[in-house]
Amino acid sequence: MSQPRAYLDWNATAPLRPEARAAMAEAMEVLGNPSSVHAEGRAARALIERARARIAAAAGAEGAEIVFTSGATEAAALALRGRDLAASGIEHDCVAAWTEERLPVGHDGRVAVEDPGASVLQAANSETGILQDLPPGLAFTDAVQAFGKIPFAFDWTGAEAAAISAHKIGGPAGVGALLLRPGSSCEALLRGGGQEQGRRAGTENLIGIAGFAAAAEAAAADLARGIWDEVAENRNTLEKALEAGGSPIILVGKDGRRLPNTSLVVVPGWKGETQVMQMDLAGFAVSAGSACSSGKVRASRVLRAMGFDGEAAASALRLSIGPATRRDEVLRFAEAWTRQLRRRAARAA
Amino acid sequence: MSQPRAYLDWNATAPLRPEARAAMAEAMEVLGNPSSVHAEGRAARALIERARARIAAAAGAEGAEIVFTSGATEAAALALRGRDLAASGIEHDCVAAWTEERLPVGHDGRVAVEDPGASVLQAANSETGILQDLPPGLAFTDAVQAFGKIPFAFDWTGAEAAAISAHKIGGPAGVGALLLRPGSSCEALLRGGGQEQGRRAGTENLIGIAGFAAAAEAAAADLARGIWDEVAENRNTLEKALEAGGSPIILVGKDGRRLPNTSLVVVPGWKGETQVMQMDLAGFAVSAGSACSSGKVRASRVLRAMGFDGEAAASALRLSIGPATRRDEVLRFAEAWTRQLRRRAARAA
Repeated sequence: MSQPRAYLDWNATAPLRPEARAAMAEAMEVLGNPSSVHAEGRAARALIERARARIAAAAGAEGAEIVFTSGATEAAALALRGRDLAASGIEHDCVAAWTEERLPVGHDGRVAVEDPGASVLQAANSETGILQDLPPGLAFTDAVQAFGKIPFAFDWTGAEAAAISAHKIGGPAGVGALLLRPGSSCEALLRGGGQEQGRRAGTENLIGIAGFAAAAEAAAADLARGIWDEVAENRNTLEKALEAGGSPIILVGKDGRRLPNTSLVVVPGWKGETQVMQMDLAGFAVSAGSACSSGKVRASRVLRAMGFDGEAAASALRLSIGPATRRDEVLRFAEAWTRQLRRRAARAA
Repeated sequence: MSQPRAYLDWNATAPLRPEARAAMAEAMEVLGNPSSVHAEGRAARALIERARARIAAAAGAEGAEIVFTSGATEAAALALRGRDLAASGIEHDCVAAWTEERLPVGHDGRVAVEDPGASVLQAANSETGILQDLPPGLAFTDAVQAFGKIPFAFDWTGAEAAAISAHKIGGPAGVGALLLRPGSSCEALLRGGGQEQGRRAGTENLIGIAGFAAAAEAAAADLARGIWDEVAENRNTLEKALEAGGSPIILVGKDGRRLPNTSLVVVPGWKGETQVMQMDLAGFAVSAGSACSSGKVRASRVLRAMGFDGEAAASALRLSIGPATRRDEVLRFAEAWTRQLRRRAARAA
């Protein structure tokens, strides 16, 4: 009797929420180009502006300007390029691409910021789940992993700008937003039409934006209902089961504040890449510390920045679960993983 | 008995094709991030690569590299920024934003190119529908309006690069592609992850790309079946009916080669903006020569470049139809428009 696969890679992308699916199906019936002045165009424009208001409410960004983009990568580029802001080594590649690595990271994964106005700092790390206390006045925060999983209100962060992404909260991939403190300047990266108040040219991703808004609203409602407390219980069950396997393992960031859904397990010498493939064959979708699109897995830049050595940084497995993940799935994973770990130990003996 | 509205603004955005809708619904079931190495990720990756192959076939770009973008605006930015290539005054805003206006335009709307390798030239104009003969070796061509309406094969153009867009051919808005001659260099605009061979970072718009491929395939099949010849008949019926109204009108580019679906009508002194609003109230979605997202209509930059005076350039109405447009709709439009034109003449008398 074969078990169905278990998806434990929510930080890479979350399953599409039914609310997003329904909103996208509805938006498919909207015909006009939002820049057209006729009734069809105005209907499309209204859909976008309603979506903007719903996302503002869900992200605590009612006082902010919201620029729709093709995702967090574009939002980061729009906010950061040409500014050489200071960052730490644990930022996502799309932030690291435009910043200078000048901020120190502790072994606990926490970053010290001296000059917030000239610095960027993520709200939560995608690999470890470690949360940062955001100092007021940050030039930019990557809120992609925090938004929807823990209470996040852009207006309260005091940050000048933040990036969020739809597909991490159950919306479609290919749409995100830059949240901007009102009056912030922001030179357009994509130029041509006057969309998004001249900040981002190009016909808007109408269907994707509709899905984004529905997902944001549903995510905010889930959060308010305490669903992520249940996720945290499953995550803790998972970690206990992994620790009960008998071999020494490292659960990165376990003693500090983390996202409720993320575990980064390190077994020095057992390559993350190998673990991912073994677990994939066993029916589990999990990820190594860091993946690039070529399908090759590198040592985790995040763990290196936290002071882990190269071997440990190449031996990380990220488990990230969500509201749909069941207790029996995480237990089944722990069993399969522990079995592999024991086989490995037996081979080495 | 009120008539249903007639949508005569296909060049702004085309209705979503049922094939695209079905493909998008199917892609919504695909869970993984295409950059993930597990089975779910590989399934998402396979969807994107199949889509790439189908779009290559539909765009005659089997020998080309295809970079998925958030639309033609991003594709143009990716190909053109920082290069100061020569262009004419009839290019789309997203091309004009990155090029220098140095190429002359004839009153027939045709552009003379001296040095193709340092120049860009559109395949078809979005406002007039006027087609260009593309000299081999162009640095870039905007193929957005030509693709899907007339035979277009990127590999045969001899161009170094071309932009296409999904929502003009019945795919969703928010997705497009840059077609590149193999080996062309192209510095990434969006940076971070290694997606699209390092040319365009960011998680791919999986659902949109699936819709794009289905639309491209359906558009190519429609074209092969001769559907656009029927569209041209309806367009010609429309123009005859407009000319039969008794007042002198200008049909821009009528004597040359045009897209089969586009009419640009000029009645000097009757503002395009006014016409759009009057026709909107009468139940027709049409557009002025040029629209920007603020809802205001400017004088057509394209008509100005062709030598029309300011009054004429502000008095253009674009009618663009498609395969779903019926003969009775264009006749109904001609009747309503002619009625307004006569009222206007009567008031002036």
